[in-house]
Amino acid sequence: MTQNIYDDEIFFAGYSQLPRSVQGLAGAPEWPVLRSMLPDLAGKDVLDLGCGFGWFCRFAAGEGAASILGVDVSGNMLDRARSETSDCGVVYEQADLESYAPPAAAFDLLYSSLAFHYVADLGGVFARAHAALRPGGALVCSVEHPIMTAPVRQEWLVDADGRATWPVNGYLDEGERVSNWLAQGVVKHHRTIATYLDLLLDAGFALGRLVEWAPSREQVSAEPGWAKERERPFFLLMAGSRS
Amino acid sequence: MTQNIYDDEIFFAGYSQLPRSVQGLAGAPEWPVLRSMLPDLAGKDVLDLGCGFGWFCRFAAGEGAASILGVDVSGNMLDRARSETSDCGVVYEQADLESYAPPAAAFDLLYSSLAFHYVADLGGVFARAHAALRPGGALVCSVEHPIMTAPVRQEWLVDADGRATWPVNGYLDEGERVSNWLAQGVVKHHRTIATYLDLLLDAGFALGRLVEWAPSREQVSAEPGWAKERERPFFLLMAGSRS
Repeated sequence: MTQNIYDDEIFFAGYSQLPRSVQGLAGAPEWPVLRSMLPDLAGKDVLDLGCGFGWFCRFAAGEGAASILGVDVSGNMLDRARSETSDCGVVYEQADLESYAPPAAAFDLLYSSLAFHYVADLGGVFARAHAALRPGGALVCSVEHPIMTAPVRQEWLVDADGRATWPVNGYLDEGERVSNWLAQGVVKHHRTIATYLDLLLDAGFALGRLVEWAPSREQVSAEPGWAKERERPFFLLMAGSRS
Repeated sequence: MTQNIYDDEIFFAGYSQLPRSVQGLAGAPEWPVLRSMLPDLAGKDVLDLGCGFGWFCRFAAGEGAASILGVDVSGNMLDRARSETSDCGVVYEQADLESYAPPAAAFDLLYSSLAFHYVADLGGVFARAHAALRPGGALVCSVEHPIMTAPVRQEWLVDADGRATWPVNGYLDEGERVSNWLAQGVVKHHRTIATYLDLLLDAGFALGRLVEWAPSREQVSAEPGWAKERERPFFLLMAGSRS
C-alpha cells in the first residue's frame, strides 16, 4: 500500500498552506502548460487519479465534462474536496492507486497531477489506466522530474564559478527516496525518464507529448526568487493516447 | 555549417586512440543496447548519418543489408572508412548533415551514432530523415545525454557525503556548449530530452523506445573505474518509426 502521507497531521497542515492548496490551479505554476496538453473536456468522462482537494475535478466540471470521478487515498483531502464541490457530475472515491481498478473502457481522459511518484507499481497503474480508457482516450499526467528525485541529498551545490547547481547522483538506481519535505520520512519512488516512457509504451499508450517543466522566463521575471529553478527541470509532464 | 572537428588534427589524433576507434563497435560500451534497438537488417537499405570510420556500415553489410550509404562531414574519417571497407554494397559520401538531403523514400533504416549533438538544426535533419524512409522504416540513433551536455562546467562535484555528483545547471537553456574534449573549443548543441522528443514527433515519427544509457552493473564490475559513470546517464538512445 502507498504511504498515505497526506493523512499525516504535520504534512497535511504544511501542504494545506502551499499556494496550490490555497489558490488551486492558479497557484500551480505548471498548470498553464499542463492545461495546454488536455483535450477538449466538453461532454467527456474524466477520471482524476490522486485528485487531492478536487481543484481539477471542479475545473473539468466547469469545462462541461459529462462526469468526473476523483480518486484519492487521503480521507483528509477528500473531506475538503467534498465540502468545496457543488458541481454536478463530480463524484469522489477513496482508494489506493496501487490497487485501484477503475471500470473498463469508461473514460475519455485520465488525469493525474503529482501522484504517480508515490506509487511503487506504476506499470500496474498504467495498465489499469489504459484499460479504463475508451479507444481514442487520453492520459495526461505530471510527476516530479527524475533529475529532482534522483539524488540521495536533494540540496543545491555550487560549481567552481559559484553557479547554483543541482546534484545528480544515483540516477540509474531506481527505487525509494526518502525526503523531509513538509514532514519527516516522505517516501517517493525515483524512476528514470526512460522507465516512465517504457511503462507508458508497454501499457499500450502512444506518446503524444513530453514536457520537462521549469518556470518560464516570464514567470521568473514575476517571481525573481525562482531564478535557480530554471537550472534544472522540476516536473515531468506526459500526454499519451490509447489507439 | 557544422563545426568539422573531426578534421582538426589534434582532435582526430585523440579520437583515433579511443577504444571505439581502435576496436570498433566492440569498444563502444553502449553498442549492445543500441544493437538491441535495431530491426533485422537482412535485405534492407540503410543510411548511416555520421558514419565515421564505417564500423556500423560494415556491421550492416555483415548482417546482409542490401545497400548501405555512410555519410560524414569528415574527409579524414571517410578516408580511413574507405580504406578499411571491402564489403559489397557499402558506399560513402562526404556531406554536412546540417544540409544533406538524402533521396526520398529510399531507406528502411536510418542510423546515427553520436552525431546529432553536433547539429544546430536537428528539426531539419529529422524532417529529411523522415522523408528518406519508406513507410514502416526505422530511425535508431544515439546522442550525448542532455544531463551530460547541460552544465557550463562539465566537472564532477561531491555532495556533503563525499559522493561523486554530476552538476546540472543551465538545463533549460538550450544551445551551444563549448567543451575541451580531445581538443579545445569543441562545439556541441545542448537540447533537453523533451526537445529531442518534440523534434522526433513533429517530424512524424512514432516513438518506439528511449534508453538513458549508462554502463550496466556487469560492465562496471568488469571496469571498476567506471563506477561513477552510473551516477548519471551518459547517452540517450532513441528508436522511432515512420508509419
